[in-house]
Amino acid sequence: MSKIPVGILGATGAVGQRFIQLLADHPWFEVVEVAASDRSAGKAYREACTWRLAGAPPESVAGLGVTTCDGPFRSKLLFSGLDSSVAGEVETALAGKGHAVVSNSRNHRMDADVPLLIPEVNPDHLEAIAVQRKRTGGGYIVTNPNCSVVGLAMALAPLHRAFGVEAVGVVTLQALSGAGHPGVASMDIADNVIPFIGGGEEEKIESEPCKILGALRDGAFAPAGMTISASVHRVDVTDGHTMACFVRLQRKAGPEEAARVLAAFRGEPQERKLPSAPERPIEVLTANDRPQPRLDRDRGKGMTVSVGRIRSDALLGLRFEALVHNTIRGAAGVAILNAELLQARGLLP
Amino acid sequence: MSKIPVGILGATGAVGQRFIQLLADHPWFEVVEVAASDRSAGKAYREACTWRLAGAPPESVAGLGVTTCDGPFRSKLLFSGLDSSVAGEVETALAGKGHAVVSNSRNHRMDADVPLLIPEVNPDHLEAIAVQRKRTGGGYIVTNPNCSVVGLAMALAPLHRAFGVEAVGVVTLQALSGAGHPGVASMDIADNVIPFIGGGEEEKIESEPCKILGALRDGAFAPAGMTISASVHRVDVTDGHTMACFVRLQRKAGPEEAARVLAAFRGEPQERKLPSAPERPIEVLTANDRPQPRLDRDRGKGMTVSVGRIRSDALLGLRFEALVHNTIRGAAGVAILNAELLQARGLLP
Amino acid sequence: MSKIPVGILGATGAVGQRFIQLLADHPWFEVVEVAASDRSAGKAYREACTWRLAGAPPESVAGLGVTTCDGPFRSKLLFSGLDSSVAGEVETALAGKGHAVVSNSRNHRMDADVPLLIPEVNPDHLEAIAVQRKRTGGGYIVTNPNCSVVGLAMALAPLHRAFGVEAVGVVTLQALSGAGHPGVASMDIADNVIPFIGGGEEEKIESEPCKILGALRDGAFAPAGMTISASVHRVDVTDGHTMACFVRLQRKAGPEEAARVLAAFRGEPQERKLPSAPERPIEVLTANDRPQPRLDRDRGKGMTVSVGRIRSDALLGLRFEALVHNTIRGAAGVAILNAELLQARGLLP
Amino acid sequence: MSKIPVGILGATGAVGQRFIQLLADHPWFEVVEVAASDRSAGKAYREACTWRLAGAPPESVAGLGVTTCDGPFRSKLLFSGLDSSVAGEVETALAGKGHAVVSNSRNHRMDADVPLLIPEVNPDHLEAIAVQRKRTGGGYIVTNPNCSVVGLAMALAPLHRAFGVEAVGVVTLQALSGAGHPGVASMDIADNVIPFIGGGEEEKIESEPCKILGALRDGAFAPAGMTISASVHRVDVTDGHTMACFVRLQRKAGPEEAARVLAAFRGEPQERKLPSAPERPIEVLTANDRPQPRLDRDRGKGMTVSVGRIRSDALLGLRFEALVHNTIRGAAGVAILNAELLQARGLLP
Repeated sequence: MSKIPVGILGATGAVGQRFIQLLADHPWFEVVEVAASDRSAGKAYREACTWRLAGAPPESVAGLGVTTCDGPFRSKLLFSGLDSSVAGEVETALAGKGHAVVSNSRNHRMDADVPLLIPEVNPDHLEAIAVQRKRTGGGYIVTNPNCSVVGLAMALAPLHRAFGVEAVGVVTLQALSGAGHPGVASMDIADNVIPFIGGGEEEKIESEPCKILGALRDGAFAPAGMTISASVHRVDVTDGHTMACFVRLQRKAGPEEAARVLAAFRGEPQERKLPSAPERPIEVLTANDRPQPRLDRDRGKGMTVSVGRIRSDALLGLRFEALVHNTIRGAAGVAILNAELLQARGLLP
Repeated sequence: MSKIPVGILGATGAVGQRFIQLLADHPWFEVVEVAASDRSAGKAYREACTWRLAGAPPESVAGLGVTTCDGPFRSKLLFSGLDSSVAGEVETALAGKGHAVVSNSRNHRMDADVPLLIPEVNPDHLEAIAVQRKRTGGGYIVTNPNCSVVGLAMALAPLHRAFGVEAVGVVTLQALSGAGHPGVASMDIADNVIPFIGGGEEEKIESEPCKILGALRDGAFAPAGMTISASVHRVDVTDGHTMACFVRLQRKAGPEEAARVLAAFRGEPQERKLPSAPERPIEVLTANDRPQPRLDRDRGKGMTVSVGRIRSDALLGLRFEALVHNTIRGAAGVAILNAELLQARGLLP
Repeated sequence: MSKIPVGILGATGAVGQRFIQLLADHPWFEVVEVAASDRSAGKAYREACTWRLAGAPPESVAGLGVTTCDGPFRSKLLFSGLDSSVAGEVETALAGKGHAVVSNSRNHRMDADVPLLIPEVNPDHLEAIAVQRKRTGGGYIVTNPNCSVVGLAMALAPLHRAFGVEAVGVVTLQALSGAGHPGVASMDIADNVIPFIGGGEEEKIESEPCKILGALRDGAFAPAGMTISASVHRVDVTDGHTMACFVRLQRKAGPEEAARVLAAFRGEPQERKLPSAPERPIEVLTANDRPQPRLDRDRGKGMTVSVGRIRSDALLGLRFEALVHNTIRGAAGVAILNAELLQARGLLP
Repeated sequence: MSKIPVGILGATGAVGQRFIQLLADHPWFEVVEVAASDRSAGKAYREACTWRLAGAPPESVAGLGVTTCDGPFRSKLLFSGLDSSVAGEVETALAGKGHAVVSNSRNHRMDADVPLLIPEVNPDHLEAIAVQRKRTGGGYIVTNPNCSVVGLAMALAPLHRAFGVEAVGVVTLQALSGAGHPGVASMDIADNVIPFIGGGEEEKIESEPCKILGALRDGAFAPAGMTISASVHRVDVTDGHTMACFVRLQRKAGPEEAARVLAAFRGEPQERKLPSAPERPIEVLTANDRPQPRLDRDRGKGMTVSVGRIRSDALLGLRFEALVHNTIRGAAGVAILNAELLQARGLLP
């Protein structure tokens, strides 16, 4: 059986490279088109791209010619790792041309008919695609959340279902790779912590989970009514965002009950055995000093969120630490899982 | 005028070395005795000690002979950087022999008649010395708080006075030097974050500020009635503990009002112009990405706590970032300031 | 076909854990016995061991009971990651009981009848096993070199064969994992470089390659006559030793010629397609800023040595940078490859 | 006595900031003019500059208005921290207008009549100023070497005088601050080493010491005849370049003799007691694991080069480790010392 051809938008960037790496031996998808800025267009991918992941780009992609992002593309399915400065218009235009654009960019995340999707959490939001298609005539955009939000929303989802989440405090310790390349200057982070991340990071963390954990009623998103407070930090770690979380639940639950609910969490990707779905979307760790980015970020091939130190909290009731691999489950990996769900549901054009 | 002779207990350890470094050119105190474990006793300090701070130990101390910690000491004033495994009994014994023991160790911090002192915050707690002296017959112990607590309590003190602090959430990103030497193995922290610190770190942060910010009534400590929740992390930074703080005040106050109160904070050390007192105990930074450990830990020669990102909080009302140099203001420096206050008040034996 | 049962000596240590990780899905070998110090003996492996590699130990090993290192063992093949303070006697005793001890420890490396083996470089040294067996009555010890030496000797081997190596200068930048656990204290290496490594590191680098690159004549090792000068440094990198190398050749060769010879290097493991043999033992990188530990250490699943910046040298003639994954190709991985070669040659008891 | 007014070219850059920091309380010089690119001109320094050193810029400079670099300047003495893309022409023009330009930039270092000056090493090279002045009519340029070269040349100078240096191999481990800001991306250096530095770093290290250690005969520089081979690395350290050095001497000398000569090294700055001159230009450390950047870079307020591990070398005869604070002794600090020597010799216009 031949694979589904896919194109990568922003293929030379940090997220684009992760797409290409994670799709290297994908059972369903095959990268046949790579698009980037005008500066790169016309070159072979291996020349246009400074590969910053381990090793070298897959041979099958290294020889592809880079095109610009306005197409035309023969792939119906396009993954977008475009910079937010250009993603908005480019993605809209390509959806208008009938493509399924599965995007990691922030531009369309909060659009009224665009799913902000984590397949284990809100697969029913895919119904918004039908609304979009009426507008576009066939193509559509599906987005995934901000890298921290993916981890946070996954940890909150089973608690919200079981007990109702009213309020969340979250303090993040975010990895360098979250800023792309060149991102943070080494002189700014060496022997240091930066208690700030630009681009509205805190605002995204405070708003995106409400859409994700909310309902889709009559084709319109009704955000969950929880209050979220986020304080973000950049730390000198290559990959893996750590989050100290505090949660107030509607129906009180102790640490053991919360742990059970988190550990038992499964979703449609696990039922359908999607290729990128980890066996366990959430892994509950019991050692008192876990999760740790270097030791736990690669669980489930980077697709599992680790949760540990679940304990009572004097202020909000429950607290725990969560960890997400920010460029796999938090970016390219979740986008690929989104596309797998689209394919499994027969929603790809 | 001749200087006051002082001795250092635990002189070869991490805190002991900081004592010796900070006292190198002190205008009032002169290190004339250095005590450590049996293993070191009998050697010259330069042989007994593997100096781990920059440069080399001061010549005046390098040639001193190391003694054991049971004395006798001719110095009435003893600084203790002893490990908590031995500090309890040793300090009690020395207070019983008439010494003023100014200790950084945790053992006696919560004792009923021992001040847990930050000179700008609770100098009136020194009245507990009179109670102690009745018990010991002359000597006494004065302790300083845990390194994180020093920074937290200093940031809370002016807010508590002005508005009343009801509840505090604090997430720490703590430096390596807080664990002493050898402390954390490099393989455990390289490219990593550890969401745990042993020795009851979270419990100390949740309890010590209540004593510090509480009252001393009729010779007995009445702890402040605030609730504190702490989640601690070790990060790969040499010096400087960063703390994300969330505060609920009795009387609501906006960020500007809080900033004014914090910036205006002064105490007895500033009034008395004590040698180690910084001009400003708290410096309020307005750049949106500060404080940062590498850039701000040395403000006021490491004795100033930096506070930044003061802003409203959807959960508790007010949030901000605080930074303390954990081995100076958070340990040896605050202990020296404590001793300076004792001397200025005429309380040294 | 059932797998060959193997035991791990020093199974809870840093090298022991790597053995267990790398053998997790090995096609020929299966870990059925784990031995460690008296302190660990009697516990299940998952309790005895603080697993410091990513994730968790394989389930099949986690449940094994830990024994002491004096046996008896039913496995004929034993991998040793023992600390050098005990490895000497333990390994001798087990060889005396008929075991094939494949050791990463330094104790027997320079013994007169013990091969110091890198399968691609000196497989003919295995003939020394016959000499040993006469001594022991059946069992034997095979060692692999020091972690830096593995990388250095592999890079030198093809040059030595083609041109003759007369003199070598090497300056190393070695990773933290080379020191085991706890190894280097984080406070000693944070924001720092240490220009020294204990345990005779420089001496090993200056002597072991001569044995490896030397001949075995009439059952006796005749070391290669090259002069080696090593200056070692510890740097704050998790895995991967970088080496700046300077080489004087008997027959002069330019950078292109050297690169060709290095890139063409293959050995018996490649011919025999041993399970752990990388396709290319040496990969020559042409980008002017490679090899780099984070990007290149995992080439060939950590079994490939990367060489780059091959250029002329005004002093010795030729210079280049080499990189070896110190705990895989430089330790547990090479030992496993050694055992695979023993099995392939029919030398296992 | 009023201070000598000075201007800073490239005042907002990394080197410019160090100039301003080091000149904050200088006894002879006072910063009264700050110049930078067109983008900064017209703003107050505190607005134009993102201060990246600890704390904040001195108040006396923070309020100065930034001008462009083409002047006019009332200060006769100008320190240049200009980027090499513009330094060449700007410095030539300002020398032509009668200024003494004391530059850290590389552009004019190898000019036939421009001293490449380290005051302790080659103060007699200042005679080239007379040659320059004939050309310019009064103004002149004095440069200091590349940051690594300052440390290397200082360590070589006393050996060269005493024994004659024939050949040098040097492998560097260079700090992040050497690349300015933003310099190296954090994602490129985290958990990594980069065996390359752009801008011709190796070539500078291989050529500049020959000019510095050479003679000035009849107004022309005669470079020293030594061969130098350099291999450079960037490591994840904030400040302090470490260098593994190998030296072949004309007249053989053992480690003890070399150590004596290095420790005894003094120069004109020490004789004249120049304000920035350290008591000892070179400090010989005897501990077997020193020098280390974090512990030794600040010796002599960053103006002392530390040398350790002096020992015999099988290849070249002598080897040792040297450490230089790259932005103080290796850049702004040595430039200030150069200007102090100019003033002391009466050479300032």
